[in-house]
Amino acid sequence: MKMLINVPETVVADALRGLAACHPELTVDVDNRVIVRRDAPVEGKVGLVSGGGSGHEPLHGGFVGPGMLDAACPGEVFTSPVPDQMVRAAAAVDSGQGVLFIVKNYTGDVLNFDMAAELAEDEGVQIAKVLVNDDVAVTDSLYTAGRRGTGATLFVEKLAGAAADEGAPLERVESVARRVNELSRSFGVALSACSTPAKGGPTFELPAGELELGVGIHGEPGRERRAMMTSREIADYAVEVVVEDLRPDSPVLLLVNGMGATPQLELYGFAAEVHRALGERRVTVARTLVGNYVTSLDMAGASITLCQVDEDLLRLWDAPVRTAGLRWGA
Amino acid sequence: MKMLINVPETVVADALRGLAACHPELTVDVDNRVIVRRDAPVEGKVGLVSGGGSGHEPLHGGFVGPGMLDAACPGEVFTSPVPDQMVRAAAAVDSGQGVLFIVKNYTGDVLNFDMAAELAEDEGVQIAKVLVNDDVAVTDSLYTAGRRGTGATLFVEKLAGAAADEGAPLERVESVARRVNELSRSFGVALSACSTPAKGGPTFELPAGELELGVGIHGEPGRERRAMMTSREIADYAVEVVVEDLRPDSPVLLLVNGMGATPQLELYGFAAEVHRALGERRVTVARTLVGNYVTSLDMAGASITLCQVDEDLLRLWDAPVRTAGLRWGA
Repeated sequence: MKMLINVPETVVADALRGLAACHPELTVDVDNRVIVRRDAPVEGKVGLVSGGGSGHEPLHGGFVGPGMLDAACPGEVFTSPVPDQMVRAAAAVDSGQGVLFIVKNYTGDVLNFDMAAELAEDEGVQIAKVLVNDDVAVTDSLYTAGRRGTGATLFVEKLAGAAADEGAPLERVESVARRVNELSRSFGVALSACSTPAKGGPTFELPAGELELGVGIHGEPGRERRAMMTSREIADYAVEVVVEDLRPDSPVLLLVNGMGATPQLELYGFAAEVHRALGERRVTVARTLVGNYVTSLDMAGASITLCQVDEDLLRLWDAPVRTAGLRWGA
Repeated sequence: MKMLINVPETVVADALRGLAACHPELTVDVDNRVIVRRDAPVEGKVGLVSGGGSGHEPLHGGFVGPGMLDAACPGEVFTSPVPDQMVRAAAAVDSGQGVLFIVKNYTGDVLNFDMAAELAEDEGVQIAKVLVNDDVAVTDSLYTAGRRGTGATLFVEKLAGAAADEGAPLERVESVARRVNELSRSFGVALSACSTPAKGGPTFELPAGELELGVGIHGEPGRERRAMMTSREIADYAVEVVVEDLRPDSPVLLLVNGMGATPQLELYGFAAEVHRALGERRVTVARTLVGNYVTSLDMAGASITLCQVDEDLLRLWDAPVRTAGLRWGA
């Protein structure tokens, strides 16, 4: 597998150097692996910190900026960051109003953010935590006890980020984040495996002519493998399991997310089928976001995430955001 | 090659249905294949129309909206749209101030936009045309006489779009577009071929362990094939040929563009090397854009585009834009 890299060992550091060079509005500590908005800490504002293994970009580093995260901690590819990164991030963004840790539900991330929370509180930073566990595909898997955290992370970071931007106290920012997670569900499919730089080839085998239904963002196994399906059939399957689990009774935000290597031409065709399938189930879509946002390196495939919203959450979604990966109104 | 599609024959129509469903701010004529901003024609504003073969998304349909294009005409995959689409688009966006056609330099596109210009003028629409031909890799190739049009198309559409948004007359909008093209140069590399839905497999053979230097956005041959190079070596090669040709004596806009399947983690690492290589050649980068903007379906690889700017062009770059594929300040 050919990659646009120097050597596997420096992939994360090289990307961080690139982020620093391209985005002067960020402070990137390449050695300690912390990405912080340059104007942090923002006076009077609750700080938002997230992080996780690299390989899912723009999540999380691409979501640092006004209206979203204050800092992100990237680990090695598909590997949790360490507590030291999170403690540094918390210290860098705390204005005295406290810090929310947004943690995807993977065993390593959960343990390390827990430890970091204790260490940061010892240093006088008030910490709240929210766990993202939106993936309805499986409970308990290779990396996780319980449901995995995937696409809903974007919704949690955006909506809690907007609440913090409005000057909400830590309690409200945490409650928005928790609510968004509870109101969100995801499901993903893989048409191909992804290749990590360290391995230099596919992380799992997916035979020609088959797809993986319910795949995780590290290529973890899903619900089942089937003979290749059409975009329409995949949309029906994914919408069915997500709607069945969420049972939304008000409009939803819809993320149609590319896993990395699926062309936008295909992704929009898939989005058409997802809209159709939702319409047939009388689910109203308030806003749609289409693109590569929560990726798995060069995996081909897609996921959908629904987040049921009320007027408050919809207003937070529409609020300005200015990050490398998501930007409007600013 | 597995694809997230229904059948190859409906790929473009399916994507247009998706664009319509996800972006209510656009009017998408799926049958006639014209994408128009919903509020067109905008009173007193020059209209901008572009188009080309599908498979390069978000170019061009993802760049329709305030501050950029008024309409786009998608052809079949890697196939020029037909004059009828362009004539419809021109009629839909002309407010009486005239329309600029932005045409990538491929034989089919040039012929069809020429014919459309005549037909539209017969219908009373004043038409100006600008040809984009920024790719320094080769002159004359599979699809083109002269240089190919690639990444600079984004700069032309953004900067001319901003000029039109300010209320500039057709003459000035055309002159901005022409100037941006003259001040822009691109160079791309492929690590893998792309697969078209019709063919169902790679459009050309690229042996394991080799890359194509100077590849076109349809996988056309470039300057040479070499044994796989590092990100640093590729950046040095690409920056050398682009800077040698452009010889910029003021700051530049830099686009580090993914061909489709290259992970953002790799793209930012490559961006770091491009910044380094430009710095060593004393080229100052005013703004950088990193992402999949002018793609070749699922090709792995990247291209760089430089556009030399003065204060006027930099202001136009920073002006608000609100499209599916590029958005800020609005």
